[in-house]
Amino acid sequence: MNYYLKKRVIGLILLLNSIIGYSQVERIEPLNWWVNFKNTELQLLVKHPNISEAIPSISYNGVSIKKTHQADSPNYLFIDLDIDKTTRAGSFNIVFKFKNGKVIKQTYKLKERLKPSEEFIGFNSSDVIYLITPDRFSNGKNSNDIDKNLLEKSIDRTNDYARHGGDIKGITNHLDYMERMGFTAIWPCPLLTNDMPNGSYHGYAMTDFYEIDPRFGTLEEYLELSNSAQKKGIKLIMDQVANHCGLEHWWMKDLPFKDWVNYQKNYEDNKRNWSDKVTITSNHRRTSNQDPYASKKDHKIMNDGWFVSNMPDLNQRNPFMAKYIIQNSIWWIETAGLGGIRQDTYPYPDKEFMSEWAGAIMEEYPNFSIVGEEWSLNPLLVGYWQKGANNRDGYESHLKSPMDFPMQHNIVEALNENETWSTGLIKMYEGLANDFNYATPKDIMIFPDNHDMSRIFTQLKEDVVNTKMALGYILTLPRIPQIYYGTEILMNDSANPGDHGLIRTDFPGGWDGDSIDVFSGEGLTIAQKDMQNFIKKILNYRKNSKAIHDGNTIHFAPFSETYVLFRILENETVVVIINKNENPITLDLKRYDEVGLKGKTLKNIVTNETFFWDQEMTLNSKGISILTTKK
Amino acid sequence: MNYYLKKRVIGLILLLNSIIGYSQVERIEPLNWWVNFKNTELQLLVKHPNISEAIPSISYNGVSIKKTHQADSPNYLFIDLDIDKTTRAGSFNIVFKFKNGKVIKQTYKLKERLKPSEEFIGFNSSDVIYLITPDRFSNGKNSNDIDKNLLEKSIDRTNDYARHGGDIKGITNHLDYMERMGFTAIWPCPLLTNDMPNGSYHGYAMTDFYEIDPRFGTLEEYLELSNSAQKKGIKLIMDQVANHCGLEHWWMKDLPFKDWVNYQKNYEDNKRNWSDKVTITSNHRRTSNQDPYASKKDHKIMNDGWFVSNMPDLNQRNPFMAKYIIQNSIWWIETAGLGGIRQDTYPYPDKEFMSEWAGAIMEEYPNFSIVGEEWSLNPLLVGYWQKGANNRDGYESHLKSPMDFPMQHNIVEALNENETWSTGLIKMYEGLANDFNYATPKDIMIFPDNHDMSRIFTQLKEDVVNTKMALGYILTLPRIPQIYYGTEILMNDSANPGDHGLIRTDFPGGWDGDSIDVFSGEGLTIAQKDMQNFIKKILNYRKNSKAIHDGNTIHFAPFSETYVLFRILENETVVVIINKNENPITLDLKRYDEVGLKGKTLKNIVTNETFFWDQEMTLNSKGISILTTKK
Repeated sequence: MNYYLKKRVIGLILLLNSIIGYSQVERIEPLNWWVNFKNTELQLLVKHPNISEAIPSISYNGVSIKKTHQADSPNYLFIDLDIDKTTRAGSFNIVFKFKNGKVIKQTYKLKERLKPSEEFIGFNSSDVIYLITPDRFSNGKNSNDIDKNLLEKSIDRTNDYARHGGDIKGITNHLDYMERMGFTAIWPCPLLTNDMPNGSYHGYAMTDFYEIDPRFGTLEEYLELSNSAQKKGIKLIMDQVANHCGLEHWWMKDLPFKDWVNYQKNYEDNKRNWSDKVTITSNHRRTSNQDPYASKKDHKIMNDGWFVSNMPDLNQRNPFMAKYIIQNSIWWIETAGLGGIRQDTYPYPDKEFMSEWAGAIMEEYPNFSIVGEEWSLNPLLVGYWQKGANNRDGYESHLKSPMDFPMQHNIVEALNENETWSTGLIKMYEGLANDFNYATPKDIMIFPDNHDMSRIFTQLKEDVVNTKMALGYILTLPRIPQIYYGTEILMNDSANPGDHGLIRTDFPGGWDGDSIDVFSGEGLTIAQKDMQNFIKKILNYRKNSKAIHDGNTIHFAPFSETYVLFRILENETVVVIINKNENPITLDLKRYDEVGLKGKTLKNIVTNETFFWDQEMTLNSKGISILTTKK
Repeated sequence: MNYYLKKRVIGLILLLNSIIGYSQVERIEPLNWWVNFKNTELQLLVKHPNISEAIPSISYNGVSIKKTHQADSPNYLFIDLDIDKTTRAGSFNIVFKFKNGKVIKQTYKLKERLKPSEEFIGFNSSDVIYLITPDRFSNGKNSNDIDKNLLEKSIDRTNDYARHGGDIKGITNHLDYMERMGFTAIWPCPLLTNDMPNGSYHGYAMTDFYEIDPRFGTLEEYLELSNSAQKKGIKLIMDQVANHCGLEHWWMKDLPFKDWVNYQKNYEDNKRNWSDKVTITSNHRRTSNQDPYASKKDHKIMNDGWFVSNMPDLNQRNPFMAKYIIQNSIWWIETAGLGGIRQDTYPYPDKEFMSEWAGAIMEEYPNFSIVGEEWSLNPLLVGYWQKGANNRDGYESHLKSPMDFPMQHNIVEALNENETWSTGLIKMYEGLANDFNYATPKDIMIFPDNHDMSRIFTQLKEDVVNTKMALGYILTLPRIPQIYYGTEILMNDSANPGDHGLIRTDFPGGWDGDSIDVFSGEGLTIAQKDMQNFIKKILNYRKNSKAIHDGNTIHFAPFSETYVLFRILENETVVVIINKNENPITLDLKRYDEVGLKGKTLKNIVTNETFFWDQEMTLNSKGISILTTKK
């Protein structure tokens, strides 16, 4: 809903309430809360005309108002509650008394928690994550394709930057497929309301942090997705954004504080003629987060500048904003029983806040997982953001999983380059060696590509064998792999590499009437079916492979255009052989003696062929072989 | 001297000794020792026919034999001495009694130390180091150009891989020039005997660790160099090699232990037909030092494989070899009053030994400095080797100064590339940001090039202005800069980039009759004189610039093809402005407000022009300006 419409609806509710002798405030957030959190504090944001003059009171066992805070706008009141350990689930009224004697009663609900904090298990190296752009995956429900109350009112599948109608129902409908393929976690790009006039399909310009975008579905549908996924052993990862909101976010019309968003004065002075030209955008010089020599000026503009002109930069140094974001994350974890959060643009918000944010979540949910996006090829930066980094500046992020952009890049270079002393497979070998720098390498997320990056098949120049090498390697590393939907059928953006709309192409079979259907296999080419089978075989092996999840790693320096990596745990050894030779080559297996495979029979996890490990191994053509000692 | 000749000379000495009623062993090392070291232990290597059967004894107050060790060869004996704190300087006899009753007396000298350990002050960020290839710098003495007793018997200045006659005397003769230029430390490439049949000029294939190569001069001349340099405030850095020796090293004819060098059996089996083909050479995969996943096999061949076929790899895991190398380093520090050691091929020897080696030196000389060569563009590896790295594997190198190959590379790329979002000056800016990773950035050595690398003028495509940018930046960073001889006159290897012989071209004026003379300036082009003056001005300013030695650093993200860096200590601020614009550009100085220069008058340290820091600064053409607030 856009702001004006919402106001009318709310007006109507207020009117109805006054008729039935019961009034409510315009907005109260979080929408509800729970009893029995470790942290007994809760800060409510209340929005209502002139609410700042009202005195709130609550009469409910265990719940007390610790403090109220007025904002710069008279239409906000922030209330600090304490919900002590004895508090029982239930509803109560918050009674607001205005100066003129008027009273508003707001009901508020404290729910029972569904399960203990410890049982919120985040994704980890036993998982493989399927990344989905919801608008482009599958249209499960036609009735929600267009919402006339929202600013972007059309769908147009011929336009790559318009909405295409994909939705939550579409994802839920195809959980079977993901389970069959062997994925154990899904990461849909953001599903919250993006009531933006255009380009709203991507979801990163949120205009309401507590509402599922009606074009994607309802909260109930989101919970159904989460529950159905959980039943299949698939964890649901929510894509969150702490750095910015969409320009049409409801609060942009009446900002609670003078410093609710960064460069707010610039926005307020210019908003009538808002454009790229008047935005103070980030310089995107993210090294200023770590750089001991960065100027304050550069660091400020990096941190506080807007990501783009239609995404106001939230000011997490405002303590009310900070609490708002933390509580919002916890609300979603608890509401949807999440199996992880993916946090967008990780290095852009205030980094002290991000530490507080991740710390607060991990304190409440010790087995949860968060993955943060720092798009940098520098392993020093990746390492900096990981929990346990022992950074010289003392920074502790509490973030379990950074993203491995450096290895992604190394893999692509390794496979595209010719083999020389310093090019080709050595890039993979020496790149992985950098793991000595990381606190916990296996908690890092690795991926062949993602929604912001050319498809791996395009990056590898549409070489199917090289693409298999990249995928096979990624899926056997000591990492948490993430695969973008469509990789299994060689989706590509080769027609215009890097074009975001094209990268996020519709998944064939996701729409009624699609002539190709990935789910049934109908219409797929042989190469597509082969790749789908390749990934399926590896994923299904990987699911129960402790050697891949937690095993030791040994790899040997590339040699004769081959590169061999072993993952080992107790009796299970997985061997990954990458071979760039077009013609047959024989490996002397003596070189790998220390791994102790001599005399063992191994099985290729994709082809089921067996191999007896003795003196030598002949590789007949370019490709990747993944063998296991497991029967 | 080659081995056979030495044997004859030694035979003569033995004969003379027997005539004068006094005998000596063939070889005893270290050649002497000192009283009053913290470490009271000394291990003597004694070489003499069948010495292993002899029983040594010493009668000297404070000196006792703790233990003797036989080796695998009967011709060696290792003697562990304790030289207790009460021992006075002086000479004594070591009496060797053989089974047949024969007795050999060996005199041994314990010297008084010249100065306390604390007064051995190593190079640091207040220094700029002049790197010299001694054979190519200046021929101070013709009489030692050829030594008929050594295997390489000729000089040929027309052959870039032959000896050219440069020597220690040539360096000593020109200390005035170095002092005038503003250098405060010199690093000559190795000066020890390299009695190799060819290519001996470079010095890295040592055949005697206790002897100055007669073609470079005598020990006395080396001490004269050290003393004369010290008087001018110039520190002498010795280039040492712990990883390997030359194939013609005296001990290769009669190796004390079966494991004195690595792959010794392979050598002994093949030495009659020794060639590149039979050598087991290093795989040079140096990441296996850090890589948690490296195979034992790769790590062994990296560590133990020979650097090249004529450089036997010393086995530092043999405890006698380990002690030999450590004592040799200490002997040279103490003998020559060194101001630092440069250790070659740092990641190649056993890394536990290297830690022990550096630790032993730094324990004895707490203010000393060692710089180690790891040629890697990966700042993770550079950081790993530095003292205080807090490595996850617990490795502590005790090495104060690694080398900054990553920044060298960044600088060259930054200046050669066009300016875009991710190319050009940003490489310098983001490269320097990696300093957050280092224990002590200012202890790292930075350089525009060195003796193994294309000349900076060649790397920068003979662009004089870019070369000045590189040098000006390097000389003002929080680092220890090293400049290779000839950089000041734009020496280059552009005719055949990377050719080692060409990189190490003769320094004009270093030989009698040279038509160009850098020392007097005679025959230099205007561009050469200008570069010489540019470096001289910066070095002489830098000498007393606490801001450059120890100041804070602030730099601003590159902007409009400019990049500005500040070094600040108390009242001194040094401003480095790098500008790639060919046409005039005006900088808004407001951007740099946090540095606090407004209203101050600054002086260009090269041109002496003054500038009043107010609203803006116009830069008229491409170039580097270095300004200071110091009067």
